[in-house]
Amino acid sequence: MGGPEVDRLIGLLAKLPGLGPRSARRAALKLLQQPQMRMLPLAAALTEAARAVVMCRVCGNLDSRDPCAICCDESRDTASICVVEGVGDLWALERASVHRGLYHVLGGTLSALSGMGPEDLNAASLVSRVAGGAVKEVILALGATVDGATTAHWLGDRLRSSGVTITRVGHGVPIGGALDVLDDGTLGAALRARRLIE
Amino acid sequence: MGGPEVDRLIGLLAKLPGLGPRSARRAALKLLQQPQMRMLPLAAALTEAARAVVMCRVCGNLDSRDPCAICCDESRDTASICVVEGVGDLWALERASVHRGLYHVLGGTLSALSGMGPEDLNAASLVSRVAGGAVKEVILALGATVDGATTAHWLGDRLRSSGVTITRVGHGVPIGGALDVLDDGTLGAALRARRLIE
Repeated sequence: MGGPEVDRLIGLLAKLPGLGPRSARRAALKLLQQPQMRMLPLAAALTEAARAVVMCRVCGNLDSRDPCAICCDESRDTASICVVEGVGDLWALERASVHRGLYHVLGGTLSALSGMGPEDLNAASLVSRVAGGAVKEVILALGATVDGATTAHWLGDRLRSSGVTITRVGHGVPIGGALDVLDDGTLGAALRARRLIE
Repeated sequence: MGGPEVDRLIGLLAKLPGLGPRSARRAALKLLQQPQMRMLPLAAALTEAARAVVMCRVCGNLDSRDPCAICCDESRDTASICVVEGVGDLWALERASVHRGLYHVLGGTLSALSGMGPEDLNAASLVSRVAGGAVKEVILALGATVDGATTAHWLGDRLRSSGVTITRVGHGVPIGGALDVLDDGTLGAALRARRLIE
């Protein structure tokens, strides 16, 4: 429908999470009917975000500032670092406003199945941040999956020599679930119920 | 999260049909994690579609060709024109492959509530097309709403003097429903059960 340009647009929209082929057609049609009001602004926003947004050199967050706005925020508790798998998890915790310290984005978990090894994670810079001595607590906010638990165990081993307190988020994260789909209450309960790793 | 560029992108994505604030955040994050592979191609596809796609001067369809691919397709039955409210309805009928003739997109229906009058519809060019004499049948495939019925009645009056056979799609279109959300079977049944307007 509508020629190769429209087919290509629908194909790209259908790859977005939350959109399938049918909703991608509806979205494309809505955009096509208002090219000046909707399509070109969206194209410009995509181009601009692709240009501006970079990975924070300190924590691995995605932001248009580097270091990111959270790392630069002097009102935050620099003695506490919350370690998450991905930026989506960081966004979820920020929306819930349950952590006033800093973050560290690993970029995944150790996973034999998907071939993620220690060298694929943004972990060396976490060890460096903690080695500075200013960090008192590292909170591991990883998913309650086998890979998350493996990664938490491995990170605990690497960080223990620095003398930092290492905790993990408490019960409340459903077994087998991912962090970024949880409600604020569950995220808050999980942070409050964090425990020392023995 | 992520600065004004990301906020703006999420805001624009959230306005697409089928995406809300939460799924727009997920979509933006997925795009941000692959700027070269996903964001810039989508931006380019939007810009390209906005540039290429125009309204067909004959039928009002949206296409990168003008006249559109359907109007130019010599294998189609030029004696039959199916009149629809919007391009989404045309796409739905084409996906169902239930009409082998041409189309005419009105761009809406007469509606006192939304202030759509006869001059707001792409109807004068339909009268011209029919006046040529080559068209034997006009099929009114409008939604089974009060506005759709009003519009069908009004169009029937304008076309009757040309001597063309005027039909409307048959039972099968749910009362109060719109055409572009129907399944192919219902669309086919509705076309087969079309009736003469008395």
